[in-house]
Amino acid sequence: MILTVTLNTALDITYRVRGLRPHASHRVSEVVERPGGKGVNVARVLAALGHRVTVTGFAGGATGEVLRERLSDGVPGSVLRERPAGGGGPVDALVPVSGATRRTIAIVDELTGDTTQLNEPGPQIAPAEWGTFLDRYEELLAGASAVALCGSLPPGVPVGAYANLVRAARAAGVPVLLDTSGEPLRRGVAARPDVIKPNADELAELTGSHDPSRATRDARRRGAHAVVASLGAEGLLAVTPEGHWRAVPPARLTGNPTGAGDSAVAGLLSGLVERLSWPDRLLRAAALSAATVRAATAGDFDPAAYRDLLGRVAVSGEAGAA
Amino acid sequence: MILTVTLNTALDITYRVRGLRPHASHRVSEVVERPGGKGVNVARVLAALGHRVTVTGFAGGATGEVLRERLSDGVPGSVLRERPAGGGGPVDALVPVSGATRRTIAIVDELTGDTTQLNEPGPQIAPAEWGTFLDRYEELLAGASAVALCGSLPPGVPVGAYANLVRAARAAGVPVLLDTSGEPLRRGVAARPDVIKPNADELAELTGSHDPSRATRDARRRGAHAVVASLGAEGLLAVTPEGHWRAVPPARLTGNPTGAGDSAVAGLLSGLVERLSWPDRLLRAAALSAATVRAATAGDFDPAAYRDLLGRVAVSGEAGAA
Repeated sequence: MILTVTLNTALDITYRVRGLRPHASHRVSEVVERPGGKGVNVARVLAALGHRVTVTGFAGGATGEVLRERLSDGVPGSVLRERPAGGGGPVDALVPVSGATRRTIAIVDELTGDTTQLNEPGPQIAPAEWGTFLDRYEELLAGASAVALCGSLPPGVPVGAYANLVRAARAAGVPVLLDTSGEPLRRGVAARPDVIKPNADELAELTGSHDPSRATRDARRRGAHAVVASLGAEGLLAVTPEGHWRAVPPARLTGNPTGAGDSAVAGLLSGLVERLSWPDRLLRAAALSAATVRAATAGDFDPAAYRDLLGRVAVSGEAGAA
Repeated sequence: MILTVTLNTALDITYRVRGLRPHASHRVSEVVERPGGKGVNVARVLAALGHRVTVTGFAGGATGEVLRERLSDGVPGSVLRERPAGGGGPVDALVPVSGATRRTIAIVDELTGDTTQLNEPGPQIAPAEWGTFLDRYEELLAGASAVALCGSLPPGVPVGAYANLVRAARAAGVPVLLDTSGEPLRRGVAARPDVIKPNADELAELTGSHDPSRATRDARRRGAHAVVASLGAEGLLAVTPEGHWRAVPPARLTGNPTGAGDSAVAGLLSGLVERLSWPDRLLRAAALSAATVRAATAGDFDPAAYRDLLGRVAVSGEAGAA
């Protein structure tokens, strides 16, 4: 089982409107709700790839109830047609909290195609709730083949939370991928996670360098065993103990990049537990990421585009100490 | 008991953000949720004035549950300090439906003070649910001293719904106020409600005239016994069988006009059941409306401002057939 941790889960709400104008009143023509937060998105893609996956983190309030109902309803629209046996939707191991799970609102303007995003901060997590989570996490690690720690921290969770969770995973012998930003990333990296997957902005904020090649090397010196930087249309740049590679999609993609990074994380993790080589992991991650940009619904991936892209992503680089 | 009908109840959510920019991502600094929909707002003000009030209409889904919980929690922040005995919060007589109660999102820009509004359409109401509501409405009318029919119709409710509800109220001998717009207003007016309270736009849409004086007379010819037009900063214009009057607040008000019309409806209805004269009803309605513009929270009214404005609203006009 692959474990994904989403401390700040979300009920992702997408509104379609005709022409968003500040100070005006808008009739929403379509409302779509689904479970969200980076680790939940990663789990959805892993389940679609046929992996057994468990979701933990926090959920509470009416929004948390809707999130949990939808999670157990399965993952309509994002499932590969030829789903491998042994799959199934993500298993819900979320820890209940008294505060309400946050909403995120994506307002899609039908006239321009632009998306405007509003993110609630998330519930206040009490110290006892954080303690309950730590116990649950330790239990879940015992059955996990890999763990992904994803996204922002809700109020009340200590800023060094991910450093703790990385150390616990390493102590349990479970490979750990960290995908966050800012101070939680800085502290988490120092606890020596197996993989981090920053985007260009997160990498620059961590290292102070806007040169991706230089910044990925610096991030390794700070503690990450492997760094996979997601560079948008320029694909993925990986610097690992086994070598360094770049995976580039065939052409500049048009579409919605929401969730592309989460799909890349799912590609990396699934490749890790399937013991693929680094070039094959990066190929999968880049193809999933590009197939997510091309999907009709934000955060889903297009299975046909994924299969097509597997043959068209270019991976270059070399093995050996980076 | 005063009955208010809100067929399209809402969970009103207010977000504070620093600078709303289309196509950008925003962190919401404050989230406030409360029960909404015009009739719910009217009920909140009536309860604050010390009237016994019952709320009916539809509620469903997780948003409907939150709405009902908050409704029974009472109405913090909007209650007059010297609340008359016999008051209490609105009584919940909402009819459960399988669809989810809509959300409205008000995005307040901290930099400009502007509000941007997003309104979900509301749940699909099944014919059987509409039938259940009609039975409930008839039962509730038996104990009502007046009824207000407020706001838009959710999908699935017949466009002539308010005409039916007006006729049922008149058959039961219960005075009925209608506050809606468009085709539901046009059809509802033809069923001869005791009072309608259109704003300038609604009145122009109903009658085709942008001259409020002419349009109010025309609206009466279409079937409304009394027409009270809410004209924003210019106050209220009433044309009734007993005479015609105008109630004007002392000065152009600055603040948030959200809910000012609902407060005016509460003023008119409470004055009706207390058998106040038309000038006194209008005085109360205009003062409540202005005190709502001045309140810190959208849709609440400021009790101190209300008491002050009662002495400062100017009512002019004359009794006699209009």
